[in-house]
Amino acid sequence: MEPRSRGAAPGGVSVSAVLPAGGSGERLGGATPKQFCAVQGRPLVSYAVRAMERISWISDIIVVVSPENIETMKTIIEKYGHKRVTVVEGGITRHRSIFNGLKVFAENEFSSHLLQKPEVVIIHDAVRPFVEEDIVSKVVMAAKEHGAAGAIRPLVSTVIASAADGCLDHSLERARYRASEMPQAFLFKIIYEAYQQCTDYDLDYGTECLHLALKYCKTNAKLVEGTADLWKVTYKRDLYAAESIIKDNLSQQVCVITNVKETLAQVGFLLPESLKSQIKVEAISISLSKNDSCLQNIISGQCYNFVCVNVSSEDACFYFTLKLTSNVDFVFSSSVLLQVHLDIPENNSFSIGMEDLTTIKKFARETKKKNILVYGLLIQYK
Amino acid sequence: MEPRSRGAAPGGVSVSAVLPAGGSGERLGGATPKQFCAVQGRPLVSYAVRAMERISWISDIIVVVSPENIETMKTIIEKYGHKRVTVVEGGITRHRSIFNGLKVFAENEFSSHLLQKPEVVIIHDAVRPFVEEDIVSKVVMAAKEHGAAGAIRPLVSTVIASAADGCLDHSLERARYRASEMPQAFLFKIIYEAYQQCTDYDLDYGTECLHLALKYCKTNAKLVEGTADLWKVTYKRDLYAAESIIKDNLSQQVCVITNVKETLAQVGFLLPESLKSQIKVEAISISLSKNDSCLQNIISGQCYNFVCVNVSSEDACFYFTLKLTSNVDFVFSSSVLLQVHLDIPENNSFSIGMEDLTTIKKFARETKKKNILVYGLLIQYK
Repeated sequence: MEPRSRGAAPGGVSVSAVLPAGGSGERLGGATPKQFCAVQGRPLVSYAVRAMERISWISDIIVVVSPENIETMKTIIEKYGHKRVTVVEGGITRHRSIFNGLKVFAENEFSSHLLQKPEVVIIHDAVRPFVEEDIVSKVVMAAKEHGAAGAIRPLVSTVIASAADGCLDHSLERARYRASEMPQAFLFKIIYEAYQQCTDYDLDYGTECLHLALKYCKTNAKLVEGTADLWKVTYKRDLYAAESIIKDNLSQQVCVITNVKETLAQVGFLLPESLKSQIKVEAISISLSKNDSCLQNIISGQCYNFVCVNVSSEDACFYFTLKLTSNVDFVFSSSVLLQVHLDIPENNSFSIGMEDLTTIKKFARETKKKNILVYGLLIQYK
Repeated sequence: MEPRSRGAAPGGVSVSAVLPAGGSGERLGGATPKQFCAVQGRPLVSYAVRAMERISWISDIIVVVSPENIETMKTIIEKYGHKRVTVVEGGITRHRSIFNGLKVFAENEFSSHLLQKPEVVIIHDAVRPFVEEDIVSKVVMAAKEHGAAGAIRPLVSTVIASAADGCLDHSLERARYRASEMPQAFLFKIIYEAYQQCTDYDLDYGTECLHLALKYCKTNAKLVEGTADLWKVTYKRDLYAAESIIKDNLSQQVCVITNVKETLAQVGFLLPESLKSQIKVEAISISLSKNDSCLQNIISGQCYNFVCVNVSSEDACFYFTLKLTSNVDFVFSSSVLLQVHLDIPENNSFSIGMEDLTTIKKFARETKKKNILVYGLLIQYK
């Protein structure tokens, strides 16, 4: 996928993001920290990074990992073609890691190149793979206005306080309380000030950034109702759920690739337009050159359904399919490739078009073995 | 599966269970209330009922459903062969439904036959499919001693209180609070008294049974740390997770069926003993008669791996496999059937045993089409 042009952030502020990814994942019960667990063959942290990366107005994405995982993280960034990401070494607790992430905008010693200090900084967990631009935008706007903001969700269970003897002391009225989720956003100067002021006890035992902003900067964060998909992958069951959701999403996504000429480009656009009511169209009208890095990005983007529009019997689409089948990560799941052949009467006879389809049929039999279903479609185009 | 003999409850008390299943599942975002959503082809509520039913010392299981779902629930009980279950019409809120469930033990008008009042009553959600005897037992023991008890879990997210302006008022120190989960248990007289005393406001807006016991009977419930699998299916992602967990569990379960004679019965037991270190053995040494209802129970019990031990070339195992393949619900997932042929030298020559295996091979090819993998094993038995 081509890098998108950098759009303006909500409220015109400059925005960057910090993703603490230093947790050990002890609640998950496995040796691998949950942010590095593979979901559909791809580490969880990569989904969270991608979610941020897709938001064009986020300038820098700081991923904070524990020292032993720095190389792993760099490999992930390279493998999945993540852009605008800086990897930073974390501390021994969540708050210390976030503080380290913020320092790259403010302290020379912490980074080989000091990054541009943003007006608003987003803090989001590496283990929350599903976050849409809409909620991030709302939280950023609220942070601009109030100094701090965070997504919240209704409580699923009643919260209770226990007495010293392990018996119920009191239960909280569920409607009056909320679960504090991510993303959160802050005016950089506020959250940085809060971290500079706070005690070692806060850094070691605290969990809530909104609390630090309130305690040290008297900033009452604006609370923004979030969607159900903001939940945090905590237990093994959450990994299962994440996997199923990702599969569901992928089956509804389509990527349209064309090699149509300028004058026919509208066909490439008409097609995704008509698809949009049915499914989520992920990327449209990518010129099908033999540009390897572009193809690689499309494939690792994991839009599992492809529509490939071409006007002639050129082998561009076949070339693309070959690249697809050679991508090992990809073929674990099934994908659909629909090749639309636009038959232009002056260039090509109908029978030649049909010949193309016969070739596709043969090709389809081969690719099916690799879980890729290829369909051909011939359209008479005037 | 044969009904187990009714073991003694912890502490020797009589115990029954009430499962509120009247919710509308609005948070799930579907038309079907979540307790009736199919997970691996079986409604969620059936898993919760089965979890209770497997605990031999629970006398009666009361499932409380909304009026429009009474027939659905009765069909589920019939289809999956649930025992000791009484279906009761629920009220418009959770508390009113639980109260209705309790009334069948205390009020004649509410049931055609008044059920034996238990000393301790368990309250468990129909949408918590995974609950082990161990935690139920702990909660019942604690209820016997303290009058009330409930399972708790650490909070996943920080809990915050919002002010009237939608901004953060304060956040709770996460370590001091817990999420109140299920199962809960009460001395029947305490929880029934609490429901009789409580206000309409409590019945309509309250959510927490432990709170009622405290408020109306001055009973501070004992809080029991629960396991991670006690979570409540609330969102669609939880259904996904439940499905994956059930698949995982099933793949590790085995059901041993034998038609061995009395003197050889030990072989049937030795086999599951040696399997127990590897996998969860669900049911052992079921006599393989052509008793249809018994077979039906085994199949609908959904233990997806079977070991079938037989001493001769009788067709009992084949008959069983045929029943298996004719069960439509079952064949959605794959299962493994291992047929162990015990060759007894005085009865049978080795070559006849081998002939049996050849027949199995042919048979295996056919059943494979229905996702059932059949393996044969010949053991010389002296």
